[in-house]
This record gives sequence, C-alpha cells and structure tokens, in this order.
Amino acid sequence: MSAPHSSRPAPTTRCLGTDFTSPVDDRYFEDYVEGGTYEYGHLSATEDEIVEYARQFDPQAIHIDRDYARSGPFGGIIASGWHTASLMMRMFADHYLTHNASLASPGIDEVRWPAPLRPGDQLKLRVTTAEARPSKSKPDRGLIFTDAALINADDLPVMTLRAMNMIARRNPG
Amino acid sequence: MSAPHSSRPAPTTRCLGTDFTSPVDDRYFEDYVEGGTYEYGHLSATEDEIVEYARQFDPQAIHIDRDYARSGPFGGIIASGWHTASLMMRMFADHYLTHNASLASPGIDEVRWPAPLRPGDQLKLRVTTAEARPSKSKPDRGLIFTDAALINADDLPVMTLRAMNMIARRNPG
Repeated sequence: MSAPHSSRPAPTTRCLGTDFTSPVDDRYFEDYVEGGTYEYGHLSATEDEIVEYARQFDPQAIHIDRDYARSGPFGGIIASGWHTASLMMRMFADHYLTHNASLASPGIDEVRWPAPLRPGDQLKLRVTTAEARPSKSKPDRGLIFTDAALINADDLPVMTLRAMNMIARRNPG
Repeated sequence: MSAPHSSRPAPTTRCLGTDFTSPVDDRYFEDYVEGGTYEYGHLSATEDEIVEYARQFDPQAIHIDRDYARSGPFGGIIASGWHTASLMMRMFADHYLTHNASLASPGIDEVRWPAPLRPGDQLKLRVTTAEARPSKSKPDRGLIFTDAALINADDLPVMTLRAMNMIARRNPG
C-alpha cells in the first residue's frame, strides 16, 4: 500500500516513554503485544476550538455559551464528549494505530467521561493492548482490543474506552 | 435555567414522524417513556467536510486521501467513525435530548459502524428509549438508556450505539 496515512502528526505530540520497537508506518498485528502500555502527548483544545466544534456538532449551552457555563457546575465551558473523543483519536491515529496495516474498526465499547475537559487542559493518551486475538477464519489478520485513557495534568482520566481494531499480520498464519 | 441550549437546529433536520408530546425545551425525565421511538433527519456531510474533520482528528488515508481511497475497498473517501458520531450527536442534541433538563452523560456503550458513511449520504437518526430508571439515591433525577441508529438512504445503519443520559425530573419523587 502506498502512503495510507498522509497527514502529519499533531505538531506537539510525541511518545512520552517506551514506544513500540516497530515504527508506526511498519507495524503489524504481531507488534501489538498483550500488556504493552504506551503514552503519547500532549494535546489540548482552546476555548474557541471547543465552542467551534460544539456549535457544529453538540450545541448544548455548557459547550458553547460562556455566560451560561460560567454560572454552571463547572464554572466555565467544557468540551463536548465527542470533541474529547476526537482529540483522543488524533493521538491514537498518529502514534498507536498502524499506518500501514489497519483494516477496520468494528467498534468501541465502554466510553466514559469521568472528568470534564476544560480549555487548555494538556492531555496525554495512555493505551494498553488488552488482548490480541488472531482471526480464526482469516489467517491474514487479527483483532486487537485496546484500553485507552485520555489523562489531564492532574492525572485524572477525562475519557476512557475500549477500542477494537482489525490489523493485518506481517506473516499470515 | 435560562437558555441552556442557545444554538439553532441544523437547518435541514426535523422530526420525521411522531415526536414527543413535550417540546425539546420543556422535556423532563418523565417524558422519556420506555419503548418510545422517534426519527429525525436528514443530515449529511460533503467530501470536503469529511476531509476537513479527518485532517484535524483522524488523518487516516481512507478519510483524507482521495487517490488512495479511490483504489481502496470503498472506492472513495469515507467518513471517520468519530465524524459519523459527531453527526449523530447533532441530531440527538437538537431533537431528542432535553434542552432544559440534561444533567450529564455518564457514557456510551456498544458503538458500532456496520456500514461506511460516504459523502452526501442522507442520514436519519432513529432513537428508542430502551430504559428509563429513576435514581434511587437522588429523587430529582433519572437515568435513561437510548438505542440510537444513524441510517442511510438504503436503510442501512452506518452507526449504532447505546447512550446513557441523566435527566432531571419534572416532579422529584
């Protein structure tokens, strides 16, 4: 496949510790080892970006109306949960998900937003490969289950989820 | 609360059949009746919008690289699953989720993308209130579980999920 991932990483994000031994553009199912944990960061959203996203997709007052939000339970604007998810995906796509062997995502489970995302919060992504299951019917691929958490500067998760991704094998079984 | 939802509905969307008896800006927990099903539409995304969202949040080639996508399994650009989710949220927030009594969303379960979203696909949202559970600890609220599906013109679901929303009661128990 040629250049299946042609955009650049978000400018401020990088691996914060130990990374995969294989680069993200030469990474296959076999490289996702159960228990492997990686951290990437940092990414944030300005208040203007939060309002802009929410005006388009989730126009609840807590996300777009500064006066209303100031008097509310969070004392100000907080991001739409779907905007938070989108920020998580940016780091997941830039650094964790193979750029050369991703076949599909069957879905996502257990999306939770335990704490609000506020403007300027510096977020890191922590991902753990929870399970890597070779396909029984298709020997050229496997399914990985990944526990992902987006964590703010106070070390609180603002979002957690479990992702499924179908990944091509380097060496079909 | 004053004007907790100050943006306008997406211009093209409306209720496609029987709606709630209460308007969306005077809707409480009691108005979400188990088994109630509603449809809203239609909303779509252009190819430029799909590419723009994905360049920002999910820059996989299948979402942003027209040449690559044309030779791929879908014969062209398809939307990021998170963009699809964002479009679903727009109709959910405009028409289904109370504008005056929404307290929080604890999370989302079982997100699936059974079919691709292509540029121009006209989408409707079908929502069913699967369960409405009064809070045992807080008599001023209840939790609703909603099965949501975003459906294309071929009547295929492009996304399904189960949403949880904490909603204030009109008459605290």
